[in-house]
Amino acid sequence: MVSKNQRKLIKSLYQKKYRKQHGLFVAEGKKVIKELLDANIELHSLFTVDVRFFETSGNNTYKVTDEELKQISFLTTPQTALGVFYIPKIKKIENNGLVLALDDVRDPGNLGTIIRLCDWFGVKDLVCSLQTVDCYNTKVIQATMGSITRVNIQYVDLVKYLEENTGLVTVFGTFMDGDSVYAKQLPKKGIVVMGNEANGISRTIEDLVDKRLTIPQFGQNRETESLNVATATAILLSEFRRS
Amino acid sequence: MVSKNQRKLIKSLYQKKYRKQHGLFVAEGKKVIKELLDANIELHSLFTVDVRFFETSGNNTYKVTDEELKQISFLTTPQTALGVFYIPKIKKIENNGLVLALDDVRDPGNLGTIIRLCDWFGVKDLVCSLQTVDCYNTKVIQATMGSITRVNIQYVDLVKYLEENTGLVTVFGTFMDGDSVYAKQLPKKGIVVMGNEANGISRTIEDLVDKRLTIPQFGQNRETESLNVATATAILLSEFRRS
Repeated sequence: MVSKNQRKLIKSLYQKKYRKQHGLFVAEGKKVIKELLDANIELHSLFTVDVRFFETSGNNTYKVTDEELKQISFLTTPQTALGVFYIPKIKKIENNGLVLALDDVRDPGNLGTIIRLCDWFGVKDLVCSLQTVDCYNTKVIQATMGSITRVNIQYVDLVKYLEENTGLVTVFGTFMDGDSVYAKQLPKKGIVVMGNEANGISRTIEDLVDKRLTIPQFGQNRETESLNVATATAILLSEFRRS
Repeated sequence: MVSKNQRKLIKSLYQKKYRKQHGLFVAEGKKVIKELLDANIELHSLFTVDVRFFETSGNNTYKVTDEELKQISFLTTPQTALGVFYIPKIKKIENNGLVLALDDVRDPGNLGTIIRLCDWFGVKDLVCSLQTVDCYNTKVIQATMGSITRVNIQYVDLVKYLEENTGLVTVFGTFMDGDSVYAKQLPKKGIVVMGNEANGISRTIEDLVDKRLTIPQFGQNRETESLNVATATAILLSEFRRS
């Protein structure tokens, strides 16, 4: 069963300020919870309709009814389990490979997809501007499908971070007027900046970009405004890795 | 204002069977509606808080209040306008370039993103299995950002369609064990099949694939299950076009 205090705590974790205050986040579904447990992300408490799903020690695992799960879940169709985990400590950015930097990506689904892409393409460090959606947002956690455990995510003052790296590594950004991403041999090392859904890369960040890249458009349809940030990231990372 | 009958009609269009019955679909937001009007998709009726937004003839345009718009909108935050359009007639598949085929893609957001990708990469024909989510689903329409007007979408018996094309064009599909998509020169013509979100390409369709392709995974994280179908499509189409 779920106590009143537990319910109150879980509900509060849908808000960033309480996640920060408690140092906790919520993950739903057997698959995602198992991936977090396997990655040794510390479990605070687990609520499930069937305790046999998990090999947990037991004293922080609670059997609940479907009805109780529904009350604490943020999903329209609740999964069979909901876990509360401690937000892991951040590792230092290594900056010795390809780093992806996000300039105010706001959509949780996009961030989740981008984290999954980093995992696929072996990008260890994801640097997010302070206005980028919180990666412990429940929707992001669900969209990452567990890959959040394999990517090191940091929230930083992006201007400061890029300034500190000026001259040390090449900073790439995508714009409408850059060089074709297909034309060049791309390096194994560098920082790739992706912009906000509506506005792209902001002016201040643009000034810190060394190389402007473009994903060329094909066909006669010059009206297509832009690619979604997650699909553009997919193409960019694919191009950097295939080089 | 919105009459009781109009409201009833609009609400019914959130269901596929009524869209089919009436031959109508709904689009929300100034930008999407303008793109549909510009593409000469026939307008049935338009409801907007400000009629000056559109250059329509007027006799099927209705000024509504924010409250009325909220009542007919499917969005949590309604846009300033809602349009009801006639579903356009389907053009014949040309099969003389790159054709994308979807084997039961179920998520409206994914289909919307894929339509946008077809538009970007100049893929004119999108062939969908009968179980693929309806492209006139309101969520799909919103996600396409108007690019649905520039892609020819058909729902067909995919097995039959591929059988008819056997030996005429090469059918490509992505699998875990295919050839690296980076290793080969890919042709300008062919059919690229993308599979369902959970199950990938189905067995029956797999038998009709001529060339098995793989998007290679990088880094040590061999646990990442798969890429999201929309991001995988982005990488595939990019590879076909860059060749």
